[in-house]
Amino acid sequence: MERRKFLKGAALGAGATALATPALAQSGKTLTIVSTWPRDFPGLGISAQRLAARIGQLSDGALNVEYFASGERVGAFDVFDEVASGNAQAYIGAEYYFTGKHPAFAYFTSVPFGMSTPEWNAWIKFGGGQELWDEVSGEFGLKALAAGSTGTQAGGWFNKEIESADDLKGLKMRIPGLGGQVLSKLGASTVSVPGSQIYENLVSGAIDATEWVGPYNDYFMKFYEAAKYYYTAGMHEPGGGLSFSMNRAFYDGLSDWERAVVEAACNEEHAASHEENIAKNGEYLAKLVDEQGVQVRAFNDDVWDSFGEAAEEVFEETRDHSELAARVNDDFQAKLREMGTMMAQFEVGYINQRNRVLGLGE
Amino acid sequence: MERRKFLKGAALGAGATALATPALAQSGKTLTIVSTWPRDFPGLGISAQRLAARIGQLSDGALNVEYFASGERVGAFDVFDEVASGNAQAYIGAEYYFTGKHPAFAYFTSVPFGMSTPEWNAWIKFGGGQELWDEVSGEFGLKALAAGSTGTQAGGWFNKEIESADDLKGLKMRIPGLGGQVLSKLGASTVSVPGSQIYENLVSGAIDATEWVGPYNDYFMKFYEAAKYYYTAGMHEPGGGLSFSMNRAFYDGLSDWERAVVEAACNEEHAASHEENIAKNGEYLAKLVDEQGVQVRAFNDDVWDSFGEAAEEVFEETRDHSELAARVNDDFQAKLREMGTMMAQFEVGYINQRNRVLGLGE
Repeated sequence: MERRKFLKGAALGAGATALATPALAQSGKTLTIVSTWPRDFPGLGISAQRLAARIGQLSDGALNVEYFASGERVGAFDVFDEVASGNAQAYIGAEYYFTGKHPAFAYFTSVPFGMSTPEWNAWIKFGGGQELWDEVSGEFGLKALAAGSTGTQAGGWFNKEIESADDLKGLKMRIPGLGGQVLSKLGASTVSVPGSQIYENLVSGAIDATEWVGPYNDYFMKFYEAAKYYYTAGMHEPGGGLSFSMNRAFYDGLSDWERAVVEAACNEEHAASHEENIAKNGEYLAKLVDEQGVQVRAFNDDVWDSFGEAAEEVFEETRDHSELAARVNDDFQAKLREMGTMMAQFEVGYINQRNRVLGLGE
Repeated sequence: MERRKFLKGAALGAGATALATPALAQSGKTLTIVSTWPRDFPGLGISAQRLAARIGQLSDGALNVEYFASGERVGAFDVFDEVASGNAQAYIGAEYYFTGKHPAFAYFTSVPFGMSTPEWNAWIKFGGGQELWDEVSGEFGLKALAAGSTGTQAGGWFNKEIESADDLKGLKMRIPGLGGQVLSKLGASTVSVPGSQIYENLVSGAIDATEWVGPYNDYFMKFYEAAKYYYTAGMHEPGGGLSFSMNRAFYDGLSDWERAVVEAACNEEHAASHEENIAKNGEYLAKLVDEQGVQVRAFNDDVWDSFGEAAEEVFEETRDHSELAARVNDDFQAKLREMGTMMAQFEVGYINQRNRVLGLGE
């Protein structure tokens, strides 16, 4: 057994500071984590730090965890290369930032008209999704686990109402992944910039619109200073997950027990971050409206139908990339149809009836 | 640090056998788990065994786990007293089996028109639910954690169609918890029997109808041999969770690290069991229809409205039990309204639009 014991206090603190002391650093296996999220950022940033700390705690010192937020060691979008190269052992982030490496990474965050969080979780853990993810990550010497979830993301922040697809034409919007490609099909000009740079782009007018996460995460971004219309559920990121992606050689070098520890911490945080968003989104949506005068809107059926037509084209193009991309897409879509039908009869069918009887959400 | 190390193989196997060898039993802290579920039962039984094994694995031998399925040490409904008395250290089960001890236990499984699984998780972890659960469990010397979830349960198995509340009058049905009280208000005669005894009651005619879990779990119960009508989403157990409830003195004697291990394993299994049900319910619903000729139905709006009126009375009666019962109910209902409204705008609003555009669930 390779792990060693430390004083508990030292192990507990390992995730909370960027650098461990040299004495500690020489004892356990080094697990340097780089993240795509800003330090101490409510929601995503706090979740990543909580995960790093928990791995340190559960490993009881066997893993000497160092955590670097975006920009502290490498930029947000450079974490992939940092870990693939072995300079760091793991990154925490969103796989769809790396569709330039392989378009199938999109399915391991969230895709337009895709799975909600519970559906995606079921696909990853019990429906063959993890095995496909391993294939895609494996092409780059990585091994990823689900380690966070935002839930269904908001449609985004706009400085005008969106009443038909025509209103999206010419719009400059920050929206990454396949969702961005759907908007492009509808005539928008889309960009992907890290969270830390969106606000300045929006205020300066470099972009007209942006999506980020949902009410709880978005509240702290102050987008309402430049865009007053906030759209609830979007088509672009209905669920899915964030990732803890390890250098494959590091992962292979872990003992079975160390792997179990890392898996357990990732599984816990995957659930916790979703729960935190659900617990807080309602409260923060109310704050956006009451404190900041934000106008909340929902996309109408016509806009949803236009999104749907554009999404079909995007999926065809994604399939054309490679045999693996086609296989990931086709498995995802097949499982989605099976689970989506069941959800309509159980989880969602129930909430629709409950809300109707109790008069909620009207 | 009190925990000790063992050969890994021994620790991994601890949860898989009912009795550890004496040599092992003397080494770690003894954690004897009694469960309300039959051994090896697909869904609930397997989930409980997986949790027991995972605690053993993550603790690396510090906790010497013994697992007893229902009837192997005590009967399903006797697990509460077995653990409260200190004869065993923890039970895995559903808290609503113990509403006779305190009616507020119902809220820590699932209540009629209550929270869906993601909502309940958010309430427990980030909305104050755990603290209220601790108060209720604390009255009996217990400390419980969420450790499993079935998702939205099916309305149940009937030998006739239910087209109005009148069709429920005189029906003898197995349905525990507050859901059973709702059915009683509508004129049904309800009983609570453990899972292992439902089939024989249904086949003998001692009961006319039953609910159990959902398609995946129910398939193996063979209820279709005696009742051909299967109703999708019911009002009675929309989500919520199963519990890992520990003797409080045992819990207090754990080190911080051991507590983290137990928490992590419970958090993992809580998510995994829900994911497993979502992944498999669609497939098993199809098997019930195609292999067994089951007729799938959904309760109509009139039946849902009748359920809603009866549920209001049940909650009033529950509040009357005690100050604590009233406080649990009122916090639950307030958080439900806040989250239910948000869910309609995000998670569920999204799935409704997606399913409309893709033509799913029609």
